[in-house]
This record gives sequence, C-alpha cells and structure tokens, in this order.
Amino acid sequence: MIEPAAFDLSCPLPIPEYPQILLAHGGGGRLMHDLLEKVIFPAFSNPVLAPRHDSAVVDLGGVRVAFTTDGYVVRPLFFPGGDIGSLAVNGTVNDLAMSGARPLYLTAGFILPEGFPLAELAAIVEAMARRAREAGVEVVAGDTKVVEAGSGPFVNTAGVGIVRAGLDISGRNARLDDAVLLTGDIGRHGVAVLSRREGVGFGTEVVSDVAPLNGLVAALLEGGIDVHVLRDPTRGGVAEALNEIAAQSRVEIELEEGALPVVRGVRSACDLLGLDPLHVASEGCALAFVPAAQAERALVILRGHPAARGACRVGEVIGAQPRVVARTPLGGRRLVDAPAGELLPRIC
Amino acid sequence: MIEPAAFDLSCPLPIPEYPQILLAHGGGGRLMHDLLEKVIFPAFSNPVLAPRHDSAVVDLGGVRVAFTTDGYVVRPLFFPGGDIGSLAVNGTVNDLAMSGARPLYLTAGFILPEGFPLAELAAIVEAMARRAREAGVEVVAGDTKVVEAGSGPFVNTAGVGIVRAGLDISGRNARLDDAVLLTGDIGRHGVAVLSRREGVGFGTEVVSDVAPLNGLVAALLEGGIDVHVLRDPTRGGVAEALNEIAAQSRVEIELEEGALPVVRGVRSACDLLGLDPLHVASEGCALAFVPAAQAERALVILRGHPAARGACRVGEVIGAQPRVVARTPLGGRRLVDAPAGELLPRIC
Repeated sequence: MIEPAAFDLSCPLPIPEYPQILLAHGGGGRLMHDLLEKVIFPAFSNPVLAPRHDSAVVDLGGVRVAFTTDGYVVRPLFFPGGDIGSLAVNGTVNDLAMSGARPLYLTAGFILPEGFPLAELAAIVEAMARRAREAGVEVVAGDTKVVEAGSGPFVNTAGVGIVRAGLDISGRNARLDDAVLLTGDIGRHGVAVLSRREGVGFGTEVVSDVAPLNGLVAALLEGGIDVHVLRDPTRGGVAEALNEIAAQSRVEIELEEGALPVVRGVRSACDLLGLDPLHVASEGCALAFVPAAQAERALVILRGHPAARGACRVGEVIGAQPRVVARTPLGGRRLVDAPAGELLPRIC
Repeated sequence: MIEPAAFDLSCPLPIPEYPQILLAHGGGGRLMHDLLEKVIFPAFSNPVLAPRHDSAVVDLGGVRVAFTTDGYVVRPLFFPGGDIGSLAVNGTVNDLAMSGARPLYLTAGFILPEGFPLAELAAIVEAMARRAREAGVEVVAGDTKVVEAGSGPFVNTAGVGIVRAGLDISGRNARLDDAVLLTGDIGRHGVAVLSRREGVGFGTEVVSDVAPLNGLVAALLEGGIDVHVLRDPTRGGVAEALNEIAAQSRVEIELEEGALPVVRGVRSACDLLGLDPLHVASEGCALAFVPAAQAERALVILRGHPAARGACRVGEVIGAQPRVVARTPLGGRRLVDAPAGELLPRIC
C-alpha cells in the first residue's frame, strides 16, 4: 500500500468510488484520503513521498531539508484574528515545524480574480510579510496569475527548512506510554472563520488562534526533549490528527476528554451547531508525543513560551490497537472517529 | 528601488494606478511589473528576493539551493502537446534550470472545483508524474483543496534544486559581445493553447513545445560553457525576456530577426491575429547568453541534444543602452518592446 504522505491529512478507511470531486474531498477526512490513495499517490510514488508527514524531508547536497506546500482557499478572506495571507504563511511554517525543521524560506503564489481590489491584495500581502517576520522566515520567490472574476483569490505557499542530523519526528514514532501534550486550546480557528462567514455570534467573539509553532518546537528540542511526534490539528481537528498518528504508529491513544482545553465561545458554537470540538480546526496549537518521563519537563518548557501558556497533558499511548478513545468526564469511554469529510468547508 | 525578483516577469516602465486587478496584471508585462513593484516587493523586500531571477537562490546549511514556485491556470486544461499538469511540472523544472540549478524535488498543490471529473484529475496527475520522470525530478509533497464549482482547477508547483558552488547565472550578467543563442523555435505553446481554446486552426496543427530544459543546461555547463544568462521565453515571449535582461544588465541587445526560428503554423497564426511571434509564449526553449568566442561550441553541444536540434544564434549584446532592437530582413532596425499586458490570457 502506498501511504498518504506529505499530502495533507488522511484516514485509513475504505470508501465507495465517486466519479466526481465532492466538496468533502477537500475536508481532510476519509474522502480526501481515498482521493490521495487512489489517484495521487500511485502516480507520484517514491521513497520520499512514502512517509506520512506534514513535510517531505529530502537530502540536498548532504543537508536534510524539509519541503512542503499548501493552498489556501478560506472564505471570508479576513476573519477575526487573521486572514488568508496570515494563514498561508503560518500554515506552511507550521507544516515545516511539525517535521522538526527550522523553517527558513517561503514562496508565495497568488491566483487573483479580475476586479479584485488592490487594497485588499495589499492588506493580504502586508499580513504575510508581518507573519513571516514574526516567524523568522523570508518570502524569497513568488508568482501571480489573474483569472476571470468569480474565482479566487487563492494563495499558495511552499516552504523549506533544515532538519538537524539525527532528528526523526514523524507520525510513525508514537510509542507505548508516550504522553500526549497539547500546546493550547482547540477549535478557535474553525469557529472564528465560521462565525464571520455565517454572520453568527456565539456569545463571545472567537478569534482565530493562527500563530507560528516553530518557536515552541525549537524550545522543546533545545530543552533536550525527545519528541516522537508533532502534529498541528488543522483540517479535521484533533480527532483527525490523532487517528492519523494511531494508524501510522499502530498504537491506541487514550484522550482525557475533560483535560482538553476549549474556550467558552468554541464550546457554545459547537453545542449550537452539533459539532464535536475534536473535529474543529486549530491553526496555532500542536499535539506533541513525548516519553511520559519527560512530560512534566516538556510542559514547563512550553508554558514558558507566550504561545503555549495553556499547554497541558491530554492523553497517552496505552496499547497497540490502532484507534483513538476518549475517557469522558463521567468515566465512560468512547471511540473518537476521524471526520468523514467536510464539516466546515473552506476554513483554510 | 526594489527590483522584481523571482516573481515572474516584469518590465521597468511606469504606468498609471488601477484600483482593481485587471486580467492584464497576470500577463507578464508592464502591468504585472507595476503590481509587483508597488504592492508585493515592498512588503517582502529581503536580500534574496532582490536579484531578478526565475528562482531565488538561498543558502541551506552551506548548500546553494534554488527555490521557485508557479501557479497554473491555463485553459483549456488539455491542449495539443500538453496539459495543465505537464506545464506545471516543466514550468517549475525550467525556472530552476534557468538559474543554473539541477532540479531535484517538486511539490504539487491542487485547487479543484466541486464536480470536477476524477478521470480528468487522474489524467493530469499521470501527466505530471510522467513529466517528472522525464525531467528526473520527484514530486515529494502536495496539497489538495476543493472549492465551489466554477473555480479551477488550478495547479501550483514549487521546486528546489542545487546550484553548484561558484556558478552565477543571472539576468544581470549579460555582457558586451555576448552571443544570444536560442535553443528552438518560438511561439508554439501560445499558439497551441489559443488554437484549442478558440477552436480555430491555422493551416497545420501547432503542438505546444512544453519540455524540460534542465538537460540542455546541464550539457552546456558540463561542456565548460561560461553561461552568463539563461531565460525561458514564457509569458510575454522573447520580447519580454530580452527586455528584462536588457534592463537588468543595462545592455543593448540586437536581434537578427531573420534568424529567429518560427514554424509555419505559428507564423500563420500570428499573421492572422496580428500578433508578433516575439510576444508569444514558448514552454520548451531557452535563451542563452554566452561569450561570442564560445558560441559555436555551445551550439554544437545544444544541437547534440534531442530537444535543441534547431539551436541557433539569434543576436548579440552590442552596447550599454538598455533596450532591445531587431535588425529586420530588409536591413532596417526596429525597437522591440515588451508587451504591456495580456496578449494571450491564461496560456500557462
């Protein structure tokens, strides 16, 4: 079997054939996995593609380089806490960081509709530049295409970073007794975009958590933490991310549901819409699998960083059956499934 | 002044302000330059962006790495001799090769409309994989997004390659007495796309020249040719490419108009539509500036390569006034301007 790889998100369940692309093919769930596995991976199969990461790690003249790309189609373009450009820069920075790479350089591609206001483009580009400075990366190349009105704007970013020799952070590396840490509260990005798009409020305004994670990762590595897995719960949320890791590492992950940080506005929105916060995207927090013996020290390091004051332990690896279960606050246990398709379309 | 850089194409003339994006902003001419210079470069200004290349060349752990991206929006998706996927792979391979880099790894991003036939996606992906094999590169990471019907599909590729130590191939390096070589006939890609889109024939069917150029570049470098400039005449054609080089190197370039290879179908199409073949895009040939003393040897090397059997000398650098002139077959001289905007929209 060719494993889904640096291509975004996936899930290992078979699904029926569809002759056409559905919106759900873009949602990061089972349908996307099916598309990748049946159409895209068989064509591009190669040894570097095979591992299932957020970035590919390639050898360039003896240097280990992480290389990744993402397209951004979020609507609205501007939402509380961010915009399509901020998302494009931080998303690619974070994909690199999740491989343990130090992100260094980005490219930016724009597909713009005829008639798009230059002032909005300027605002997006300014946001990208600001976010790049914050994350310590440089945008060094780009491209602009213009298409008929009605399409776009869309932004693509690609990024490269250096992975230090010997470092191996991968979704395949979760091990029995690993502690599962979470660097912040979940679901804010998905709810922020949805609230602006639908024009609905959920009590308090929820602001996207879009933020770079490379500083956190560097702090953990410099602190000597033996990080096994890093994953940012974007499309498909924590449920998707953990199901991927469970499948790749062939481990059972148990979540302590009561330990999961969810802010009130996200909780209300999920209650109102019948969504599970575990399925809602974040853009500024990460899941980290570390040896249980290092968990407390890792949390101290994370909490010393402004972006991870709320870091906490949310679960552990308890067995070898590839699945994710949650211990509920009332003491029960439930299976945590990956979402099948598109819960919140076009959130990134 | 911040110079347009790895961002595609440009031209140094000032133009009026527009509050909205026009189709012509994507055409590779003066309007695009204006957009880049006023909106994009001021935001992303950095030392690597500053040189005006097809790729940025960055340092990654002591290795010189060329890094580039391009979005593809061509319509129709399939045209004589190629398709959007072939174009996406070869375009990025060629952008890397034009910096003298050995292209190694690509990413692929897809933005797909809901309802897009999976069979067409499979054909595009297969073409990309085949073209990647032909060019000796691997697609190692990717991304898929789905948007509402009516937009896309669009393909983005980014690429990395290694530039050997000491090599400096750049649009700034043209020198007095350089010979200007062209590796093949011009304008086939633009005419092939246009003929299929408009459903018109031009006598004989014109097939796009889409092809990888990295083999040719490697042959020149291995043959010890001191290549000063490489540029593939894509959007904006030979006129745009040479005007860019003239501006960047501050040299006058004289073209021998009668020496320019143009096949009959391209010539007829241009006559019929009132286009100058110098403005029509190619996707499988390159302009190379080499010392006049090495021109004959360079041509022998190029002609030994299947993709450049028709390589020829088409001009030379004759002075220091930044402009491009053509000597006409009747002995006259005319100024060769860069196109202002969109002659043939969405040809790549």
